[in-house]
Amino acid sequence: MTAPPRPRRVATTLRVRYAETDPMGVVYHSHYLVWCDVARTEFLRQLGHAYAELERGGLLLAVTEAWIRFLAPARYDDLVRVDAWLERVQSRAVRFAYEIARIEPAPTALLARAATTLVALDPEYRPRTLPSGLLRRLRDATSTPA
Amino acid sequence: MTAPPRPRRVATTLRVRYAETDPMGVVYHSHYLVWCDVARTEFLRQLGHAYAELERGGLLLAVTEAWIRFLAPARYDDLVRVDAWLERVQSRAVRFAYEIARIEPAPTALLARAATTLVALDPEYRPRTLPSGLLRRLRDATSTPA
Amino acid sequence: MTAPPRPRRVATTLRVRYAETDPMGVVYHSHYLVWCDVARTEFLRQLGHAYAELERGGLLLAVTEAWIRFLAPARYDDLVRVDAWLERVQSRAVRFAYEIARIEPAPTALLARAATTLVALDPEYRPRTLPSGLLRRLRDATSTPA
Amino acid sequence: MTAPPRPRRVATTLRVRYAETDPMGVVYHSHYLVWCDVARTEFLRQLGHAYAELERGGLLLAVTEAWIRFLAPARYDDLVRVDAWLERVQSRAVRFAYEIARIEPAPTALLARAATTLVALDPEYRPRTLPSGLLRRLRDATSTPA
Repeated sequence: MTAPPRPRRVATTLRVRYAETDPMGVVYHSHYLVWCDVARTEFLRQLGHAYAELERGGLLLAVTEAWIRFLAPARYDDLVRVDAWLERVQSRAVRFAYEIARIEPAPTALLARAATTLVALDPEYRPRTLPSGLLRRLRDATSTPA
Repeated sequence: MTAPPRPRRVATTLRVRYAETDPMGVVYHSHYLVWCDVARTEFLRQLGHAYAELERGGLLLAVTEAWIRFLAPARYDDLVRVDAWLERVQSRAVRFAYEIARIEPAPTALLARAATTLVALDPEYRPRTLPSGLLRRLRDATSTPA
Repeated sequence: MTAPPRPRRVATTLRVRYAETDPMGVVYHSHYLVWCDVARTEFLRQLGHAYAELERGGLLLAVTEAWIRFLAPARYDDLVRVDAWLERVQSRAVRFAYEIARIEPAPTALLARAATTLVALDPEYRPRTLPSGLLRRLRDATSTPA
Repeated sequence: MTAPPRPRRVATTLRVRYAETDPMGVVYHSHYLVWCDVARTEFLRQLGHAYAELERGGLLLAVTEAWIRFLAPARYDDLVRVDAWLERVQSRAVRFAYEIARIEPAPTALLARAATTLVALDPEYRPRTLPSGLLRRLRDATSTPA
């Protein structure tokens, strides 16, 4: 008897840039979506699929829905970790979830939760299916309830 | 017998900037949140409250939740209209909804729907209530079921 | 005896966005380059050449050099005017100059001067010459010493 | 007889983000100024001065002039190195120079050269002198002709 496979989580670490902060002294909210994108890119890279190569091969992943809940502010020069994992994988769409946390300075704190849905498109922006190799790896990386 | 008051909608028009578009040739998704912010600012201005003055008076409105659904891409140099209205007003928080549409070039098209929740903070970033004058105007601008 | 032709100046008006400001409460310096781009686009449009169409026709204008001198800060919600004009036109490159000024709130003030050089590229990113019609209009719009 | 001290160069490595690229598939030019800022922050950190702490202590460093020369494009997911060093240190202003190079994928290439001048301001945005400890460390880090 084996434990059910756990979803693969990939952590990416970022230093908050001055350009990302606003007059309140905290990160302007839209930049969290950029961080989620950076984390998603690292997730795919660790799965063996550089997104830049996927695009050159004719696969675009376009965000069709985004959601974020902000719990605490990130500030300039904070060291931030973005955990990304797959919530759902379909033949034409995937859904990623994210947790964004401050890791420096202490104390660590959860800053935000987010999720984005992406659909597979061809270079002419028409829906297509995910390549079978990528699809299999994405499914393997997704949590499966026992 | 009078009709129930309708929510006040404020329309803001924007020209898509080259800096806002990505290698797909379409607006990178995080910029829609910036446009919602621009539209919200115009909404408050038409209500008689420049947000810059609210901040100088000690009121910050911080985004605590954001959601966007992307329906069709915006492209460089498109003329885009963002409609903003209030969905909910409480003494310490408001929720705005948005519709983003292409108005040029033809045909017009709905590009995205979005919503953001904002909480009232003082300059030390502690929760506070909205000033009574602003709160009354916000409530007057909100839809009221009959 | 006629006066020498004056360079054509095109003015574009922008409202400073919250997303463009930093913890100092002023516009983060890199955004001025975006405003120069917006002003350059309007300059070309008034000359009868939408840049989006130039790109679709196989002409890219890539920035190869940029310079800015910051004189006074722009703040959130300021109304800003960017004047753009051509300093130099060659068969494969153009140089634009810019003045960025606050027009609201009073008093008006010159905020920055800038200049950018752009080269003509084809879609494969190789140098090319400007189309003759565009080149002629650009030269007509440039100042000519008597 | 000793060699003249060489300027201290600090290298910072960045991965190009999708949000930083434009429809040409290359990094939009204004983002290079953000990278220079990131590199400058690391330079100061290695000198023992976190810029976030300098600001909390009442010292702002505001960019008054920026210049960039673009030599080759950076693309999405490239690994980029920004070298920063001090060109000039005065009691109220410093000038940083930068070289931005692609280090992955091969071959390595110099992408841009840049320079920015920054002046010391107090929190009310008035000119001030640099703190003596910081000034001494900055001067020690600057090249000195024999």
